[in-house]
Amino acid sequence: MSATNIGVIGCGYWGPNLLRNFAENEAAQLRWICDLDEERLASMSRRYPMARTTADYRTLVADDAVDAVAVVTPVATHFAIAKELLRAGKHVLLEKPLAATVAEAEELIDLAEQHKRTLMVDHTFVYTGAVRKMKELVDSGELGDLLYFDSVRINLGLFQRDINVLWDLAPHDLSIMDYLIERQPEAISALGSSHIERGIENIAYMVMLFPDQFIAHFHFNWLAPVKIRRTMIAGSGKMILYDDIEPTEKVRVYDSGVTANRVGDREAEYQTLVSYRTGDVWAPKLDSTEALRYVVAEFLDSIRERRQSLTDGHAGLRVVRLLEAAQQSMKNGGQSVILNIAATRHA
Amino acid sequence: MSATNIGVIGCGYWGPNLLRNFAENEAAQLRWICDLDEERLASMSRRYPMARTTADYRTLVADDAVDAVAVVTPVATHFAIAKELLRAGKHVLLEKPLAATVAEAEELIDLAEQHKRTLMVDHTFVYTGAVRKMKELVDSGELGDLLYFDSVRINLGLFQRDINVLWDLAPHDLSIMDYLIERQPEAISALGSSHIERGIENIAYMVMLFPDQFIAHFHFNWLAPVKIRRTMIAGSGKMILYDDIEPTEKVRVYDSGVTANRVGDREAEYQTLVSYRTGDVWAPKLDSTEALRYVVAEFLDSIRERRQSLTDGHAGLRVVRLLEAAQQSMKNGGQSVILNIAATRHA
Amino acid sequence: MSATNIGVIGCGYWGPNLLRNFAENEAAQLRWICDLDEERLASMSRRYPMARTTADYRTLVADDAVDAVAVVTPVATHFAIAKELLRAGKHVLLEKPLAATVAEAEELIDLAEQHKRTLMVDHTFVYTGAVRKMKELVDSGELGDLLYFDSVRINLGLFQRDINVLWDLAPHDLSIMDYLIERQPEAISALGSSHIERGIENIAYMVMLFPDQFIAHFHFNWLAPVKIRRTMIAGSGKMILYDDIEPTEKVRVYDSGVTANRVGDREAEYQTLVSYRTGDVWAPKLDSTEALRYVVAEFLDSIRERRQSLTDGHAGLRVVRLLEAAQQSMKNGGQSVILNIAATRHA
Amino acid sequence: MSATNIGVIGCGYWGPNLLRNFAENEAAQLRWICDLDEERLASMSRRYPMARTTADYRTLVADDAVDAVAVVTPVATHFAIAKELLRAGKHVLLEKPLAATVAEAEELIDLAEQHKRTLMVDHTFVYTGAVRKMKELVDSGELGDLLYFDSVRINLGLFQRDINVLWDLAPHDLSIMDYLIERQPEAISALGSSHIERGIENIAYMVMLFPDQFIAHFHFNWLAPVKIRRTMIAGSGKMILYDDIEPTEKVRVYDSGVTANRVGDREAEYQTLVSYRTGDVWAPKLDSTEALRYVVAEFLDSIRERRQSLTDGHAGLRVVRLLEAAQQSMKNGGQSVILNIAATRHA
Repeated sequence: MSATNIGVIGCGYWGPNLLRNFAENEAAQLRWICDLDEERLASMSRRYPMARTTADYRTLVADDAVDAVAVVTPVATHFAIAKELLRAGKHVLLEKPLAATVAEAEELIDLAEQHKRTLMVDHTFVYTGAVRKMKELVDSGELGDLLYFDSVRINLGLFQRDINVLWDLAPHDLSIMDYLIERQPEAISALGSSHIERGIENIAYMVMLFPDQFIAHFHFNWLAPVKIRRTMIAGSGKMILYDDIEPTEKVRVYDSGVTANRVGDREAEYQTLVSYRTGDVWAPKLDSTEALRYVVAEFLDSIRERRQSLTDGHAGLRVVRLLEAAQQSMKNGGQSVILNIAATRHA
Repeated sequence: MSATNIGVIGCGYWGPNLLRNFAENEAAQLRWICDLDEERLASMSRRYPMARTTADYRTLVADDAVDAVAVVTPVATHFAIAKELLRAGKHVLLEKPLAATVAEAEELIDLAEQHKRTLMVDHTFVYTGAVRKMKELVDSGELGDLLYFDSVRINLGLFQRDINVLWDLAPHDLSIMDYLIERQPEAISALGSSHIERGIENIAYMVMLFPDQFIAHFHFNWLAPVKIRRTMIAGSGKMILYDDIEPTEKVRVYDSGVTANRVGDREAEYQTLVSYRTGDVWAPKLDSTEALRYVVAEFLDSIRERRQSLTDGHAGLRVVRLLEAAQQSMKNGGQSVILNIAATRHA
Repeated sequence: MSATNIGVIGCGYWGPNLLRNFAENEAAQLRWICDLDEERLASMSRRYPMARTTADYRTLVADDAVDAVAVVTPVATHFAIAKELLRAGKHVLLEKPLAATVAEAEELIDLAEQHKRTLMVDHTFVYTGAVRKMKELVDSGELGDLLYFDSVRINLGLFQRDINVLWDLAPHDLSIMDYLIERQPEAISALGSSHIERGIENIAYMVMLFPDQFIAHFHFNWLAPVKIRRTMIAGSGKMILYDDIEPTEKVRVYDSGVTANRVGDREAEYQTLVSYRTGDVWAPKLDSTEALRYVVAEFLDSIRERRQSLTDGHAGLRVVRLLEAAQQSMKNGGQSVILNIAATRHA
Repeated sequence: MSATNIGVIGCGYWGPNLLRNFAENEAAQLRWICDLDEERLASMSRRYPMARTTADYRTLVADDAVDAVAVVTPVATHFAIAKELLRAGKHVLLEKPLAATVAEAEELIDLAEQHKRTLMVDHTFVYTGAVRKMKELVDSGELGDLLYFDSVRINLGLFQRDINVLWDLAPHDLSIMDYLIERQPEAISALGSSHIERGIENIAYMVMLFPDQFIAHFHFNWLAPVKIRRTMIAGSGKMILYDDIEPTEKVRVYDSGVTANRVGDREAEYQTLVSYRTGDVWAPKLDSTEALRYVVAEFLDSIRERRQSLTDGHAGLRVVRLLEAAQQSMKNGGQSVILNIAATRHA
């Protein structure tokens, strides 16, 4: 079996990581590196002399030898570039988020289907050992009924000029939740504030309501004194604390919960204790392989096996749909946006 | 100068702490202990044999020797009890929150004014070494322009039967913010969920918008795998992290911040770094005196000096106004409630 | 069955805790409280009006109605007081360490045997949920061969005038190790330094060698910037980290270890990796009952059941033997002291 | 000014880091890469095509164009290689520790002096922002009289075949202490244990006594359940806690201390509190530049400026002297080794 010929468009912050992982995967042959910055291109070329370089992505579109392309450019450019690539019969891996609007995402999915090509989004976190272990736990049912999902992703860090903190950070947590919970919210609202650049929110809160009292909440912040990456997933049986900052023990499972005692009514007058359970805590060993290695392998495998990937266009669309709704809510001062569940159900 | 004769109504979870602090304050003379539970009353009586006991708070209302009364009963009863006490000319210290509605709180304030009596609310946290140190820092101006207030108060713990997690926990954070920030929000919204008892939210999120992009957010939770009590107060100059779980170093001041560089436009293509500053971190030594000791002293002093206390009826009202608005928003699925700033400005 | 009549001698820092636990145990009747300080005696008397008070412990020795006495005085006085009590036919619970010398400890054990009375030492930590859980783990064999015991007990705190940091803090860790490991060292050495009071070491290190490469090390310090109470117990199969500062999860079990690969010799030139395993981490739920409650119960039970207690005179002697040897080593600049294993084997 | 022609011998774990830093320094010209492993050599060559490669270090000795050589080989080979290089007139940077014995270290120093060449040891930690900040603090005198140095460097990790844990890890802490404290101990003792490979200690404790009650202690461990890199430096005025695991705030300064109150003798009977101070805690901002960049710059500067480097042969010798003494003590079951202070005083 011959290797898949790969092009990578965009060598900014994340692109070099994809380049490295394609270079290390034997099923891939790095054919093109594309970036607008000449210096960066030269630097990448020294590292990967087997690949050709170009500043014009259309060179890749036009090269019949190219099988698949990773697009690691700003989200505003995803649609235009991916459209041309798919039409030219290339398989496409897009950096998260998949596209800037639901309409764009839907059109890309349609194009991929028409041309029978793989369309995949780089929801990297889905491929981490931590998230895959949590998926096992959730799917095993031992958490019981799911109660809430609460995620905090804050630090003092990179400011983006083209997108706000929501579009920058939320794709991580939304893709994790989408993968783990497999449910879509009925309503979403978001509020944020812009302290640095007018119109670019650097802090944002987002909350989603689901059927059956399940609730999800998110805090994104580019301007925090400390770095926190922490998610709680609570079930009636067990609860998970996922702390991505921890060097080890990123996932902890708490055998804790609450049971409402409704038998009898001889409660103390002023306040009563619902009986709660605190039990063992368990931190499972996690696969520490770099997630991007699995992303690249899944992309190549799904091409070869002509199947949908774990994070296909539909997964990308579901995340974009939530981003778009949250953005709309934020623009309207936090007014709740009702989501059409039928339209957004898990593919 | 003769001691102030004190009665305490309610000996549940918090009442005994007030009893102990009144007993230890030389300016107070414990005269009455009141509780509906006979056993608890007997137990308190053994500890404070100088005080009389009764199951009927009207005994205190009727006793002319009583100067002042602390009411440590469920919030639903505050108004009825405090009204009788004020009319009978007693000074009143009410457990937080001051009252169950804005209307009640306003009537209590009016009554206290008519009868020239002290009306105070036990916003305990305002009297802690940590909060007083943060007040110094905020007032000194070294934080710069205030950007946001973010507070998380979660754990696996006490469930209340009569009030939800918002009314239980929010008074702490709202009283802290009110004291530190001295600003009132323009709009408030809240969302929660009830996993244990129908209609009693055990998780709630609340967000407030202020003029000038200042934003405040709160997370309250009775059903979390870990205990967190953490507040961030960010300024354009410095940021504070207040972690009440820390045994020492509860308050940390980060000499960190962000400056937008708008000079020139030669930014890199895909993303740019707003220049940010990380500097020294400083954890000031804090007064570790029990806060309730200061609460009791302030109550006694404000009576003797015939002045408003630090946490007077107006402070209590401001907190109740926010709780009432948040509750209304939560009932309406998170719909924003616009607050009349004129009505709620700092007294 | 009638209650055991109890006297408590010494109401300084720890005595009141024993008083409280005897008062709460229905099998005990508090008969005497003894202390040299009149004020303290009066304060205790108010709290426990059923007990008589005296400044002279000989009153308890002479009172035939007294069954058992807890001695919570400085270690230098243990021997003289306990000797009189045992001779008068009283059961004796001594605060740790049991005595100031091996000779004293041995004589007390002999006296207790002659008079058929219970002699027990208050090795409180042995009765904590954390230590009892670790005992289960060690006894189950899942740790594999024991490799080392490493304990750090440091903080900025109480200085003693009559004893050094070794005699103050080491009894805790030595009693824990004695209970968990049930082995005696062949040699012991210790070094310390006196920065505050000449001749009273405020920092000390102690190391013990056992047969089979097992090694134990201890760091005691009254003058540390932070508080640490941490013990590692490593086995060839699993390792335990016991952090007594942690509010929860005090005991963590690491399914980690190392295996030497001796098959073949094609190791890389400069350094090679012995294969090591990192696996799950597990924090078992612990009984959070106050340990002293169990101490008091064990004392009363062992009296009633005419049996040795879990922390009997021999346990106390083993700890004193190590303290005496460590003190001797410290006096001689860390010179190793060889221990007569036959004499110190587990009774 | 022409660039210094550099050779690097040894491309195992650490060598590539030196290669990278020489490659990035404009004052250096990478001329030779030397390693016994062909594959590794090829891999380095691809990364640094400007350099020649060889498996025989004598090629570098013989090349007149070579100005300076970094030797990153096992310690057992340092002496033989460095001797030839110095005799051939090359400047030499040796990986830590400088040599395997004091005699070797002294001969290298003599050779360097005879040939007027720079002999430097790569005590990397001395060049970190954390250690340089601590040096400022110690030199400023604000710590007061130095009381103790306590260092713990443990984890589950790399096992060496040729050296024990002492020779592997102690050079880090000894070089830090030597740089910060500038004092030499009077006596040293060490104890260890070998659990994996006979004769290769994987756990070791080392203690040093200095004049004036200053004491230093070290714990090294390859077989610990957790990773700890923590040093305490206590002074009578302030104390430093240096935690190298912390991503930020590695250095904390505690304004805490103890004062013995010797006025009067009305102390409480059983135990007394020496008055102690707990004050502010301060975490200074640290230079986060990679330390090895400074190592390389200092090597090149000291060559050009014909001066001793910050970590010259004498610094290397002082560390080797302590290692040799500790090793001797460990071999003799912890027997104290008296050091000749005159011989080891700071050069």
